[in-house]
Amino acid sequence: MIGLYHHGLSVQEAAYLSRAMAQTGKMITTWKKPIYDKHSIGGVPGDKTSMLLVPVVAAAGLTIPKTSSRAITAPAGTADRMECLCPVSLDINEIKRVIEKTNGCLVWGGALDLAPADDIFIEIEYPLSIDPLLLPSVMSKKKAIGANYLVIDIPTGKGVKVKTIAEAQELGSKFIHLGKKLGISVECVSTLGDQPVGYGIGPALEAREVLRTLLEGRGPADLIDKVSNLASVLFDFAGFKDGKQKALDIIKSGRAGKKLTEIIEAQGGNPKIKAEGIPIGPESVEIKSRKSGQVLWINNRVITQTAREAGAPKDKEAGILLHKKTNDNVKKGETLFEIYAKKKHKLKRALKFLRTQDVMKIGKPHEMVLTEIPKEEEKEEFFILER
Amino acid sequence: MIGLYHHGLSVQEAAYLSRAMAQTGKMITTWKKPIYDKHSIGGVPGDKTSMLLVPVVAAAGLTIPKTSSRAITAPAGTADRMECLCPVSLDINEIKRVIEKTNGCLVWGGALDLAPADDIFIEIEYPLSIDPLLLPSVMSKKKAIGANYLVIDIPTGKGVKVKTIAEAQELGSKFIHLGKKLGISVECVSTLGDQPVGYGIGPALEAREVLRTLLEGRGPADLIDKVSNLASVLFDFAGFKDGKQKALDIIKSGRAGKKLTEIIEAQGGNPKIKAEGIPIGPESVEIKSRKSGQVLWINNRVITQTAREAGAPKDKEAGILLHKKTNDNVKKGETLFEIYAKKKHKLKRALKFLRTQDVMKIGKPHEMVLTEIPKEEEKEEFFILER
Repeated sequence: MIGLYHHGLSVQEAAYLSRAMAQTGKMITTWKKPIYDKHSIGGVPGDKTSMLLVPVVAAAGLTIPKTSSRAITAPAGTADRMECLCPVSLDINEIKRVIEKTNGCLVWGGALDLAPADDIFIEIEYPLSIDPLLLPSVMSKKKAIGANYLVIDIPTGKGVKVKTIAEAQELGSKFIHLGKKLGISVECVSTLGDQPVGYGIGPALEAREVLRTLLEGRGPADLIDKVSNLASVLFDFAGFKDGKQKALDIIKSGRAGKKLTEIIEAQGGNPKIKAEGIPIGPESVEIKSRKSGQVLWINNRVITQTAREAGAPKDKEAGILLHKKTNDNVKKGETLFEIYAKKKHKLKRALKFLRTQDVMKIGKPHEMVLTEIPKEEEKEEFFILER
Repeated sequence: MIGLYHHGLSVQEAAYLSRAMAQTGKMITTWKKPIYDKHSIGGVPGDKTSMLLVPVVAAAGLTIPKTSSRAITAPAGTADRMECLCPVSLDINEIKRVIEKTNGCLVWGGALDLAPADDIFIEIEYPLSIDPLLLPSVMSKKKAIGANYLVIDIPTGKGVKVKTIAEAQELGSKFIHLGKKLGISVECVSTLGDQPVGYGIGPALEAREVLRTLLEGRGPADLIDKVSNLASVLFDFAGFKDGKQKALDIIKSGRAGKKLTEIIEAQGGNPKIKAEGIPIGPESVEIKSRKSGQVLWINNRVITQTAREAGAPKDKEAGILLHKKTNDNVKKGETLFEIYAKKKHKLKRALKFLRTQDVMKIGKPHEMVLTEIPKEEEKEEFFILER
């Protein structure tokens, strides 16, 4: 491991390792081919893209068996969000049945014995923060699931792991080359990672936003744009024309919502579930702006940590609901965001954490100062209204 | 050097090194105390802040003998910009005369024999990209010039060295601690570094913008905000109240312009110089937008390189004049920026370079895709109109 840290891996070494890792567990070979898949490097709070992408792609007739993780350091993983709607711990045979019925699934990958060597590596890697295994880690799972076409989302920006387009391009190229050696066609997209995707952060708030977007036609523009762009990459692989428009049509017409409902039902959930029917934390506060201006930035790291202090992802009902995002105008006294929690003491813990942090910067667009170091910082740009 | 790279320097080691480096050359001890100073970590094209800050601070009665470098990798250094207005290669006695008359100066530090060990280190450092000496390099010069109060600007953002506020805070804290050990009161400010400051990039275009701002009252909001914030930090040290407003008043009332004129005259330049009187490149092209939308980002690195291909900083007349900045609305066919050059072949070289690069992203604010990797990239978001 230490050797890897110093010397890294060549693409060829990564390919051998990915194959070997894939072969430590089950390999899926019997689903209807070709298999489409998506992976995100992650790090952006509120990124519920997969939960919309799978129904869109499945509704277009492509096979997309999506296995996901639970959150470790994030406020929610795809498995945590999806679990608000239906069971996600399916075994391979159950997944196959779901896929046969609906073309897609959204399940937890942890119990599937896909490339289990990877899970062991992750445990060692994490304390060491070692990166060279990121590529084999991702690709061994994709190889095990039998993916032929893969789109990788590389969120890029200040509050995430990949900070610049140049870094995204470097990482993306490696995935593409590694994919080639493994027989997987990979396309990578660098996406805006500077602020949360959509407005809801935390399993239940995110699941609600997914349902609102697909079932009620009330979705955030950034989320819809992200989903339709990633879908269009998979549609390109499939030879479909004008993929982005096709994805938008599938969302707008309600076909994606219908497909999500089918998947929920096939995985054992209630197909009649409505956004409002998903419980969110009974304890909440609104955070209001102390001044008028524009939202100049939102700190992903602080949003993530606040949602976690409030109880997410363990408490599915906990999280943050943004009212304002970057570039939005704000009037003094307007709500910037709400915090939801299941337990009052966790809400208090989140508020205590917030008092020492800068979540959002409200100012004028030409204001140049990001922060002064280390003068007493003005932490009190908003005031809190308990209710 | 290699040892430094692996082990870094403790603050105490950096302090000893800074003092030792300062003592390799002249030490200034005879100017009117206290001495105020400013340094920028740099990297943002068009950052002409020092040329405005010195007159503002000097007009308030504080002593600010600013020594600067010429650009090495940038389109212009403060010395290059200032040289469009007056001589900058003054010796210590000449500088003292300027300071006595005007409280400030804007001169090239290279000929002053201030901490010359640093200049030798820089030559070795550069090919190795070694960072640990950044702090002693900056602080040894400040110690040699006798600075008592120092504001350090840390531009922070995608296209610059320091990419996140967390990194800025870490670097800033080191400067503050090192300052304490050297008897210099240091305050650091992290400023928006995502796009150029103001609109002009390149020595002459920047000098014009400085004069327009201070003499004609037509300055870009971001530049004025940056200058007034940095000035207010120095005014805080001096015990002045409401420093930012004081700085704005000094700019608005024309006192800063008058002071700049005095400095120009004292350094041997023409005090009657006007913005339009500074020659800019006779060769130019306008780059127009191929689509309507909003400017989502500007790539600092590409702006810098384009200005350099056009001849900056050696050709003072060369550079870029932005018409649009981030978040501005753009209509199809509107000018995004102009490129100026002294020689036609350099203009062509700049255009050739541009064709393979993404300078600006024009799109809708909710568009999530930053770039696709490595599909044939659409490099042609603007069309070029030679004139």
